[in-house]
Amino acid sequence: MFKVISSKGGKKMNRLSDLSESVIFPKGNKVTNGNFTGTAWVEMLVSNDDIFNCRVYNVTFSPGARTDWHRHPGGQILLVTGGKGYFKEEGKPVQPLQRGDVVKINPNVKHWHGATADSWFVHIAIPTNRHKGKSEWLGPVTDEEYNNVKSKKQN
Amino acid sequence: MFKVISSKGGKKMNRLSDLSESVIFPKGNKVTNGNFTGTAWVEMLVSNDDIFNCRVYNVTFSPGARTDWHRHPGGQILLVTGGKGYFKEEGKPVQPLQRGDVVKINPNVKHWHGATADSWFVHIAIPTNRHKGKSEWLGPVTDEEYNNVKSKKQN
Repeated sequence: MFKVISSKGGKKMNRLSDLSESVIFPKGNKVTNGNFTGTAWVEMLVSNDDIFNCRVYNVTFSPGARTDWHRHPGGQILLVTGGKGYFKEEGKPVQPLQRGDVVKINPNVKHWHGATADSWFVHIAIPTNRHKGKSEWLGPVTDEEYNNVKSKKQN
Repeated sequence: MFKVISSKGGKKMNRLSDLSESVIFPKGNKVTNGNFTGTAWVEMLVSNDDIFNCRVYNVTFSPGARTDWHRHPGGQILLVTGGKGYFKEEGKPVQPLQRGDVVKINPNVKHWHGATADSWFVHIAIPTNRHKGKSEWLGPVTDEEYNNVKSKKQN
């Protein structure tokens, strides 16, 4: 059971969801916005509003799935809750990620994140400073770019 | 192993920590600020800075432990990662909390949160809109207030 409690009016939202791969928070719906390679799911935990000035969502990546290259005008925080993944900032070595890791992504830093080739991967994402504007999507992480990260990791 | 990755300069912080009761993120240090009843622990995951305009921390409550009454000028989001607890807003019925629940606490709403009497309780806390000022602490949740919640729950 998944429940959101708002202090505004005591509204509740209850949902049954398969949590088997999404560690604590629901898996949500398949991402269909064209900004990912491979299959990923997203569940909005806190959506856009004028109160908190940030959003919170749970993202689940199947093995090999990753976001496109992108940047956030207001920055983003990732809290890794399960599986194995990567964080890649342009021009820097890839950072392997696992349960318990925290990633602080500064505003306007070009990057991508996603699962390793052999593991699903789950993180909570907190895009901050909503008033600074929407994420900019900058094209897919090609198989060559992704495989290059993998081969560096393996060597 | 707990790791924070910053996109600013690729800094890393590694720590060994007992995660047995804190579900994914570290338990951290005992809270000694005088704003809690009972024993609780806090680990800062993202501290105050001028970039994200919010903080993120992991809070672990022992059974019966709870915050004092307080309010946040900028609001707060709680993401419950384990155990059993309560969220109580002044003048409203208590909300029981468990793994996977999300609580959106509007600015300046007087409230407290904490563990049930017989369970530890863990949540991620995200105080938002840091620029609106510090939390205001409004005195302990008395045993009478806490026991009143418990007895209502049991009946």
